[in-house]
This record gives sequence, structure tokens and C-alpha cells, in this order.
Amino acid sequence: MEKIKIGILGYGNLGKGVECAVKQNEDMELAAVFTRRNPQTVKILTSNVPVFSADVLDDGMKRPVFDVLIACGGSAADLPQQTPRYAEYYNIVDSYDNHNKAAEHFVRVDRAARLGKKLAVICAGWDPGIFSLSRVIAAAAFPQGENYTFWGSGVSQGHSDAVRKIEGVKDARQYTIPADEAVRMVRGGHMPVLEAGQKHVRECFVVAEEGADYEKIRNEIVNMPDYFQGYTTAVHFISEEEMKEKHSTLHHAGMMIRPARTGWENSSNALYELRLRMDSNPEFCGCIMCAYARAAFRLNSEGHSGCRTVFDIPAGKTFYGSRRELFGML
Amino acid sequence: MEKIKIGILGYGNLGKGVECAVKQNEDMELAAVFTRRNPQTVKILTSNVPVFSADVLDDGMKRPVFDVLIACGGSAADLPQQTPRYAEYYNIVDSYDNHNKAAEHFVRVDRAARLGKKLAVICAGWDPGIFSLSRVIAAAAFPQGENYTFWGSGVSQGHSDAVRKIEGVKDARQYTIPADEAVRMVRGGHMPVLEAGQKHVRECFVVAEEGADYEKIRNEIVNMPDYFQGYTTAVHFISEEEMKEKHSTLHHAGMMIRPARTGWENSSNALYELRLRMDSNPEFCGCIMCAYARAAFRLNSEGHSGCRTVFDIPAGKTFYGSRRELFGML
Repeated sequence: MEKIKIGILGYGNLGKGVECAVKQNEDMELAAVFTRRNPQTVKILTSNVPVFSADVLDDGMKRPVFDVLIACGGSAADLPQQTPRYAEYYNIVDSYDNHNKAAEHFVRVDRAARLGKKLAVICAGWDPGIFSLSRVIAAAAFPQGENYTFWGSGVSQGHSDAVRKIEGVKDARQYTIPADEAVRMVRGGHMPVLEAGQKHVRECFVVAEEGADYEKIRNEIVNMPDYFQGYTTAVHFISEEEMKEKHSTLHHAGMMIRPARTGWENSSNALYELRLRMDSNPEFCGCIMCAYARAAFRLNSEGHSGCRTVFDIPAGKTFYGSRRELFGML
Repeated sequence: MEKIKIGILGYGNLGKGVECAVKQNEDMELAAVFTRRNPQTVKILTSNVPVFSADVLDDGMKRPVFDVLIACGGSAADLPQQTPRYAEYYNIVDSYDNHNKAAEHFVRVDRAARLGKKLAVICAGWDPGIFSLSRVIAAAAFPQGENYTFWGSGVSQGHSDAVRKIEGVKDARQYTIPADEAVRMVRGGHMPVLEAGQKHVRECFVVAEEGADYEKIRNEIVNMPDYFQGYTTAVHFISEEEMKEKHSTLHHAGMMIRPARTGWENSSNALYELRLRMDSNPEFCGCIMCAYARAAFRLNSEGHSGCRTVFDIPAGKTFYGSRRELFGML
């Protein structure tokens, strides 16, 4: 059997995660890595696979060495440019995660993919991605209900960066943690209206510069608008060694819970709850992206083109295995 | 907007559950109920909706009063006949639950539906159904893992019936309960090979005939091949009043858990866990069937025909709401 050839665009944590996932999928192989750094400085895990400058992708490779390109850049600066640009030339999968701008991203990617008769899948991580799928399925089946998503416990990169910008802070890590009370209520079948600060609490681990004012830093953190204001935030000052030892993993977790009512008078309770837990967020996302790369490849091979999200794609298309094996999962 | 007209075939617990679900979906309305009993003896909850003899469906109604027929019969005797028969004439949804024969059922339904250019969805409950979907998604994304499904705590009709057939038993209810130790292991990331009896324990509540031999009944239960042998089974003798008071609800629950490994050397843990909990199993199933009735209607309206399972259908097709609302769930 011909394997699906994967190209990875961007070799950071997520790119590495995709590389690991490709290795786990027996119907896939890594064909190339594309980087905006000097390719000669990029060492990858897979042997005998070339690293190219991302420039070679720009105007469409004459004969692409891959079937699907998995775009592993950031959602702020990279993907809004890359995915629409490359969707014209290549089947492509991204994990664009700006929920508010996803519809706009879709339109641009869809236009390019249709033009080039390619298949693109956007927002194919765990949130957006698998959680979005669950939100849709649960909402479709149980109209008398409410979706609640809780993230964590896990590191929020954006919040960590925000803390790092405070004067006197040398390094910082911010964990987002679901608020016990909120989870308990929702899981118990209640459908409360929750402010952001009631759903999650925040915990910061900070390495301060020598001689820095701890109280000043703490105050700046807990009162930071948009990021911490309105949340219960714990701030711990730790040493550089402790930061390195205890806070360098990329584990994460999340819950999508839909309490609902069924019955003639809506008097029965029903609960749909998806929980995800992962030691490595980028490896986990990489796995999901590979499954959707398979779907993109198949859909395009069948003559489809344009942009898709997770809820536009039948789950069976993501699964490697025969129809018979699929039925074995019924 | 024109509502989707639903026909219900079979008005037992599940038929009633579908009726309740139709009421919850603002884009649907109940058009008719079809029964094999004398229609005049069947009183339904919805006012001004006719109850017909199921016979009128047999050779295809000239102008069906509904868009989608939801078949609510049993999987042993009813659905293997009904779904293939009616799929030729009507869009149809069933919750056929014999996992081993589903592929065969699919082939027969598919042939009929293609012939009549109709759209059929089979196995559209929670297991098979939403759990199957989760098994496929989780397996597709995380190839280095294992799916474990736990049912309960909830009543198993088949096991209750088996106990009822024992001499001296007047009434019985059997609960299937996930074995704590097995759930703990799997949730902890282990992938044990589990015998059936290690995954679930069984608990029976029995009303005995006057003068019956309790020990003899208990022995017959716990040693019954296929049903109880190899399981840890608790047997409680209770009064008819207690049975009626405490064991007449149709609540159920289940978990589909996939522990998996990610990373270059498979050294990171990942966990996918879907939990469902419901006060009323038939109402819960009815809700899911309505969502797939919506998908069947839409797919057929777009010109598709043949049989589908939950993993052949994009989740977005089950969701009532605009594309914009869908994106709101990303």
C-alpha cells in the first residue's frame, strides 16, 4: 500500500508532535519538513527525511513531495497567512485556534482550496477540534441543554507570556485550572450562567529577578485586565531550578460537559461529558492533525475540494482501517 | 420554515422517547405514529396527531405524511424486518443494537434505500451510536491505544428477562455496573486485557414467589452461562412494593475510555473519555435518533441515498442551526 506522505510546516513543539504522530500511523510517512529558519540548523527526529526552507512552498511546488501539508505555526501571525496561501497548492491541515476569527479564516482558506482543487481542514486540534465536534454532537442531540468547556489543569502560553512581561519577572508559568465548584454544579446537572472567573482559577509560578519587589509583582499579576482581573489567582515565587524541574512539561487537560433535560416536561436529566488528559499538548494535537490529514487526503482523492472543519467530515474518514474494522467499532 | 415531519414506528418506551425529543426540537413536528397494536387503543402524548396501523406503511404510502420514519422496534425481531423493508419507501432511522450483525443489517438496508433513493441511518442510539463515534474518533487520532467501554450503572433488559424465567421468580431487575478496579486501571492509563467478568459486576433484585427456595434461585442466577457465569453477581430478594418503588426507572450510564500513548517513544500518556449519564434511557436514545433523523432528511434532500452509520455522517448535518451558529461552537 502507498503511504500518505506528510509534509510538516514549522518545526516547533507542534511540528515535533506531528512528527511523532506520523511515526505512530502505519499508513503515513514523513516526506519533508519545511522551516523558516536556516534548514541546516534544524535537526529532526526522523532519519533520512529532508528539511527544506519554507520558501520552496511559496508558489506551489511543481511536484510536491507530500500529499498533505500539516501547518504547525501560530494562530496569531503564521496561520492566517500560511493556510490560505498554501491551500491553493496543497492539501493542508491546521489547528488554527482563534475561535472568534475561525469563520473568516474558513472563507479565505475555502476560496484558495477551491481554486486549486485541494482539500483543507482547519481548526483540527482538541479545542477547537475534538471538543468542537463534541459541542456540536451534544447540542444537536440534546437541544434542552448547555455546553460548558473547562480547560486545565495546564499551562496557558498567552498568560505565561503576559506575566513574563512584568518588570522584575525573569520567568513565569501560568496554569489554568477548572474551578471545582463550577465543575461540580455543571456535572450535577445545573446550567448556571458563569462568568469567566467563576469557571477557572489561575496559578502562577514566577522566578523573580534579584531584588525584585514580590508584592508589586503579585499585585500587577492579579490586577492585570483581561488576563487575571476577575479571576482567583495564586502567585508563587520559586527558584529557577524549581521552575526547570517542576514546570517544564506541556501536559494539559479539559472537559466539555453538556447537562441537558429530556422528556415530555423536560424533567429527566442527561449528561454528556468528554474529558481529555494529556502529558504532552503538542503531541496530542499532532495526533489529531494526522487523523484529519488522512481525511483530507481521502476526500481530495475522491474529488472533493474546499475547506472543512471537524464537523464537516464524517468520522470514518479519519480512521485508518477497513470498513469491516469500522463496523467492529460500532 | 417548513418543519421536518417525523413518523414514529412502534409506540413503546423508545417511541415515547422519540415523541418527547421531537417536541424539544423546534425544527421538527410529529406527523403520525404507526403501531402494530389496534391504533384505537394507543394514546399518545402529542395532541392532534393520528395513530395509524403499521400496515399502511407496508407497500409504500402514496404520499407519506412524514419526511423521516423513526423505527422504535426491538433489534431481535422487529428491526431486521422493518428497516430494510421500509428503507425502500421512506427515509428511516433505527437504533439497531446487535453489534455483531450490524454489518449485515447495513447491507440489507443499503440495498433497499438505494433502490428507493432514500436515506437510512442505522444504529443511531448511544451504543451503538454516540459511543461508536467516539471509539472511531479516538482510535483514528490515537493509534497507540485501546478502547474500553463500560456500561452502567443501569438496567439490562436481557439479563432481567433471563432472571425472570427462573422457576420461583415473580419479577426481577438486573443492573450492570462497571467494575471499579477496571475503570481505575484504564483511567489510570493502563491497557489491561480484561475478561467480561472483570469489566462489569452484576446486581439482581428479585421478587420471589411465595415459598420459593431463595438459595436455589440465587445459585441458578450466579451460575447461568453467558449471562452471569464468570461475573461477580449480587442477588437481593425484595418485596413487590420495593421493586415498584425503587426499581422502575430506566436510568443508565456509560463510559468509553481510550488510554493511549503519544510521543517518539510512546512515552507520554493521553486519555480520551466520554461519559454519558441519563435518567431515562429511551428518552436519551430518542434525542439522538431525532438528531440523525435531521441528518437523514438533509442528506436525502441534497440527493444522497443509501444507508449510513454515525461515522458516515458529518456531525454538522445533525445540528439544527445556521452555519454561523455551527462556527460559534468551534
